[in-house]
Amino acid sequence: MIQFTLRQQDRQTKARLGQLRTARGVIEIPAFMPVGSLGSVKGLEPDDLHNLGFRLMLNNAYHLYLRPGHKVVAELGGLHAFTGWPGAILTDSGGFQIFSLAKLCKITDDGVTFQSHIDGSTHFITPETAIEIEEALGADIIMAFDQCVALPASREAIQEGVRRTTEWAKRCQGIRRRADQALFGIVQGGLEADLRRRSAQELVSLDFEGYAIGGLSVGESKADMYAMLDITAPELPEAKPRYLMGVGLPEDLIEGVARGIDLFDCVVPSRHGRTGWLFTGFGRVSIKQAQYTRDERPIDPDCGCPVCKRYSRAYLHHLFNVKEMLGSRLNTIHNLWYFADLMQRIRSSIERGTFLALRDEFYRARAAGAPNGEARDGADDDRRTGLD
Amino acid sequence: MIQFTLRQQDRQTKARLGQLRTARGVIEIPAFMPVGSLGSVKGLEPDDLHNLGFRLMLNNAYHLYLRPGHKVVAELGGLHAFTGWPGAILTDSGGFQIFSLAKLCKITDDGVTFQSHIDGSTHFITPETAIEIEEALGADIIMAFDQCVALPASREAIQEGVRRTTEWAKRCQGIRRRADQALFGIVQGGLEADLRRRSAQELVSLDFEGYAIGGLSVGESKADMYAMLDITAPELPEAKPRYLMGVGLPEDLIEGVARGIDLFDCVVPSRHGRTGWLFTGFGRVSIKQAQYTRDERPIDPDCGCPVCKRYSRAYLHHLFNVKEMLGSRLNTIHNLWYFADLMQRIRSSIERGTFLALRDEFYRARAAGAPNGEARDGADDDRRTGLD
Repeated sequence: MIQFTLRQQDRQTKARLGQLRTARGVIEIPAFMPVGSLGSVKGLEPDDLHNLGFRLMLNNAYHLYLRPGHKVVAELGGLHAFTGWPGAILTDSGGFQIFSLAKLCKITDDGVTFQSHIDGSTHFITPETAIEIEEALGADIIMAFDQCVALPASREAIQEGVRRTTEWAKRCQGIRRRADQALFGIVQGGLEADLRRRSAQELVSLDFEGYAIGGLSVGESKADMYAMLDITAPELPEAKPRYLMGVGLPEDLIEGVARGIDLFDCVVPSRHGRTGWLFTGFGRVSIKQAQYTRDERPIDPDCGCPVCKRYSRAYLHHLFNVKEMLGSRLNTIHNLWYFADLMQRIRSSIERGTFLALRDEFYRARAAGAPNGEARDGADDDRRTGLD
Repeated sequence: MIQFTLRQQDRQTKARLGQLRTARGVIEIPAFMPVGSLGSVKGLEPDDLHNLGFRLMLNNAYHLYLRPGHKVVAELGGLHAFTGWPGAILTDSGGFQIFSLAKLCKITDDGVTFQSHIDGSTHFITPETAIEIEEALGADIIMAFDQCVALPASREAIQEGVRRTTEWAKRCQGIRRRADQALFGIVQGGLEADLRRRSAQELVSLDFEGYAIGGLSVGESKADMYAMLDITAPELPEAKPRYLMGVGLPEDLIEGVARGIDLFDCVVPSRHGRTGWLFTGFGRVSIKQAQYTRDERPIDPDCGCPVCKRYSRAYLHHLFNVKEMLGSRLNTIHNLWYFADLMQRIRSSIERGTFLALRDEFYRARAAGAPNGEARDGADDDRRTGLD
């Protein structure tokens, strides 16, 4: 199982410093999880992730259920043995992917019928089968099966989603058999403050090992997302970890931490890396731009990552331009380093009582941009999908 | 420049053991060069290649001339600085790529007019511009600009190609300015024994630092290719390195070494890796096959590569099946290890006087196949293209 220790709380914000102990090691909190949808972060080996400092990664039950199948993974000893990842794993239950990727979803109280986005085959997933799949995959932390309502949606639809999510959460608890996995409930409620509160309260009464906030970063404004965090986080118990699903950009991590979030996952470091979007303290470096053709500097002269130590913007620009696979790998390594380093700096600042100063400095540095002005503010909107 | 030392010659075959000293380190001969057409072996970092034991890699002047351009590479300090590769580099002059990849080739004694395979733009390359490009790229070994005649071809066409290749070789020598690069001539002559001999003799009289055999592995039978090696190699000086271009499969390396070849390059370890063709001593493992879905064994239980140490066939099968980039990277690492290891075993066997025994054992093990019979003999034909 897991053991959550809250070491320190920020005095000026709701930021929390803690540790999550799992059978596969200790995760310093707050933490960002890289996403290996299909069992790998695209182009990276487990050792690469470990060397970047990550100790917890996310795999998607939906994708692994479709290919190679949860029973195959179970026969091979579970996800850790299958992928060779030595750290801890969290699996998303698949609810979000079914609603965002699959075709012809039909939802009843019983479960969800959908067509695979791969081959159109029909599948029926219930809370019970979702837990069966996640138990077969064998992650350290598993997520309850929830209904994620796409926004915008009517209040009635959101209300129905909250009701169903609570009912399904109970069924997930009822069917689970493995005592070595932690089960997290997922708060829904769209942008309706009272429904968010109700969803949180209902789930908390069921006493999960941790709580996630789902259904955000699906197209709403940042202000709306942050408002929902302000409303939801205080409803969650202090002594349990809180996980904001599918979020986000660097500023979202900072704002999430400030609102009491402990865990994040998102495809942006890897997916944006593959599109040439490189994260730095001074904003985005869009490596595809012609201005980098002869630029011998690293992506970020102040970055300590293995890519910035060895490769020039010119080489990364070339690799992107000629579509060399190595470019995707190097861009992803740089971006994941940036995310890991940001979380490390966040943790240090909470410990020292300087988290607000770090937040101010984050926005100041980004607004100032790079000396030669080539980098743009990386505040462009991002859309989450279940597939990286 | 380079310094070639012949340490030992096999008593039973024409196999040679030696060293090629360059400003960027010593290459043990016979050696296989991995191909980084556009400046990287797809999905691998320079450190990966170095850790696999390679000390000499090939980059393609044609591809780098088109993108990012030889002048850009020169401004960035040449290929070594641009790519971060610490070892030695050989650049192909582009002749083969122009004839195999480019559109609307027009050849005159002056040079070749062609259209870029990227954007259809028109280019004119002469022996003089080819050398200018290669000097700008800055490899340790550069190749003369030759005319590679596609087979089958009339004797007249091949004769014309030989004449032109010799004329162009002279012009390459005449125009070169950098004394720190070794220049190799390229023997042509198709499958015409007398023309091969003539081409070799004419080039040898021009006194290059090394000699390549070109225009093979372009669709002819293995017997034809080996026959041409039997005819050509004896025409080349003992004291200079001999390089068989674009070859080949493991058996071609063994047969090439037996015929006195010192250097090889080919895209097969990387390109075949990306298509799921994995090399082992017992033949090919086609990782896409469903039989590997639940196979917990490494690709080759006797292989010492980093992939076989960590990953199962089941995981590699899954990565291939879901088109994960990591699969290409891991398959390429395994294959390149196999090639590096094969060359190492070849060198050891020459030193010990057991090269013929190694050759026999190579064919015996492959014919025996894997214990469970899943691997097929990897003798399928392969076609070389200039792009990996």
